[in-house]
Amino acid sequence: MTRIVVDAMGSDNYPTPDVEGAVAAARAYGVEIILVGDEAKIKPALDAQNSAGLKLRVVHAPEMLTMEDKGVALALKARRPNAKNSMAIGIDLMKNGEADAFVTMGNTGACLVTAYFRLGAISGVDLPTLAVAFPSATGSFVLVDLGANPDCKAENLFQFAIMGSIYAEKVRGVKNPKVGLVSNGEEEGKGNELVKATIPLLKESRLNFIGSVEGKEIYGGQVDVAVMDGFTGNVFLKTSEAVAKLLTDKIRDTIRGGSLLTKFGGMLIRPAMGSIRKLLDPSEYGAATLLGVNGLVFIGHGRSDARAVQVAVRVAKEAREADLLGATKSAIEESLRKK
Amino acid sequence: MTRIVVDAMGSDNYPTPDVEGAVAAARAYGVEIILVGDEAKIKPALDAQNSAGLKLRVVHAPEMLTMEDKGVALALKARRPNAKNSMAIGIDLMKNGEADAFVTMGNTGACLVTAYFRLGAISGVDLPTLAVAFPSATGSFVLVDLGANPDCKAENLFQFAIMGSIYAEKVRGVKNPKVGLVSNGEEEGKGNELVKATIPLLKESRLNFIGSVEGKEIYGGQVDVAVMDGFTGNVFLKTSEAVAKLLTDKIRDTIRGGSLLTKFGGMLIRPAMGSIRKLLDPSEYGAATLLGVNGLVFIGHGRSDARAVQVAVRVAKEAREADLLGATKSAIEESLRKK
Repeated sequence: MTRIVVDAMGSDNYPTPDVEGAVAAARAYGVEIILVGDEAKIKPALDAQNSAGLKLRVVHAPEMLTMEDKGVALALKARRPNAKNSMAIGIDLMKNGEADAFVTMGNTGACLVTAYFRLGAISGVDLPTLAVAFPSATGSFVLVDLGANPDCKAENLFQFAIMGSIYAEKVRGVKNPKVGLVSNGEEEGKGNELVKATIPLLKESRLNFIGSVEGKEIYGGQVDVAVMDGFTGNVFLKTSEAVAKLLTDKIRDTIRGGSLLTKFGGMLIRPAMGSIRKLLDPSEYGAATLLGVNGLVFIGHGRSDARAVQVAVRVAKEAREADLLGATKSAIEESLRKK
Repeated sequence: MTRIVVDAMGSDNYPTPDVEGAVAAARAYGVEIILVGDEAKIKPALDAQNSAGLKLRVVHAPEMLTMEDKGVALALKARRPNAKNSMAIGIDLMKNGEADAFVTMGNTGACLVTAYFRLGAISGVDLPTLAVAFPSATGSFVLVDLGANPDCKAENLFQFAIMGSIYAEKVRGVKNPKVGLVSNGEEEGKGNELVKATIPLLKESRLNFIGSVEGKEIYGGQVDVAVMDGFTGNVFLKTSEAVAKLLTDKIRDTIRGGSLLTKFGGMLIRPAMGSIRKLLDPSEYGAATLLGVNGLVFIGHGRSDARAVQVAVRVAKEAREADLLGATKSAIEESLRKK
């Protein structure tokens, strides 16, 4: 039985969505759940759920990391051997073999730092990276790096590509994933210095590298993995969300401000618009995955509801069952042998 | 009377949209138009228009630059004193005082290089930059750099901010434009090396710098100028276009594939959806502007239709009448004096 640690203190509305989603996941996917956090807060949230017959236990963590935790103070908290916050205790449970994966909806930066210090990087990986699946016209693609590393070297992007490709294969079930490098134009010769230095590494690799790509190829479904530095990845993510919001808001306002017939039409297409919103709903795609550390770590959005937590647990279970960690280690090792 | 050179060989379907748009602009805005390009091709397109009473002349250019022109070969063509292509001849007309601005729908890279070599950079400007106005929830914002400079230093971004601010003020009519620097998070301490090095320059300047911004602030209408390096700017543009296309395609497909009632609803909201498409139509926002060269250069999309060409001419006229070039020179000079 796969054992998943869920940080009960993660989401903005903790612990209810975290606990509710974890219980739902235990029922839906037959996983064992370990809830980590303040017992006094978890207990009432858990009592409100029907968890009869589920394998579920609570590990007390008296402290928690918040959005206020950053910089040196955060690094100290993340390193402390006897740290008492829910992320550190949860990640340690996995490190000590008591669990198979760790899931949190908490502060991404805090989780990155905590996981990096407590688990360490996979041998051969210089920078761990955040990967996430995004919707495209034909299905989905994996974006690496989502923002863990704002400054990158070509070697980093190369490693992101290897890890992103393994993720697409093992967790998203894509055979021989098509890898694209995000650039300012598809043509040969385009790119900033970083992109130009990365292209030869990708060309010489065993990856299914299809070349430089732009938004239209990525969202058009022509790649399974879109590789970029974390600054660009973050701009990509935030711009995508903002354009989607601008458009859906404008459509809503235009319909509301329109004629009676337009309003009536808007009513009729409401179910169709709902499916569009679902397409863009991060909770449908689950959490981001931290690749390149010695463990399986999944970080969801703070705004996550129970459904998003449940999906994150499902992705964690699938990653464990596909041996994502072992496959990532093998792929990195192989890339090192080739040198 | 403002005199605008229009490259008749610019758009993908040249010369018809270019000529038609130029004639329409001459009529609508009372400008003098100088069409540059192959006379044999321009004549029939011009004869198809009613240009009676308009101030309009044709200057023959036997050659043209295309998407194939790049690299060293392009640089040589761009520099040659007696170059015979329409961009070089058109830009020279402006340089020699026979025209006030140059407008093309042709190859952006070719125009950048040609303008840079023939006009030179404004004193104090290291890299000229491409600026364009984009729609936001409350109006529009100016994005610099759209892709002219994939690798930038802090000093370059600082100059882009100055020039973008002047553009927003003079051409978009914004008083004391709010300038934001695009980053991977609004919080202090976020950013890549480039962003972190740029922030102090912007803080110390006389610009109305509001700090680091993300997609939601930009598209939400909280900035008038969004500053970023050309690589990021290009990713921003292409991602925005791709998300808008993905969404509008999905909405269309969902309505088409829906129930009869959904299809009927789709029919009723068609006019409303048309206004959304117009919001995203680049032709409504006119061409990109090359800032930092000694002249007024406007570059539109190759896919431009006559309407987009007309709007580009209008923006060129407004820029000239607001003395965009003089104001840019003054602002750069002032920033140098402050050092």
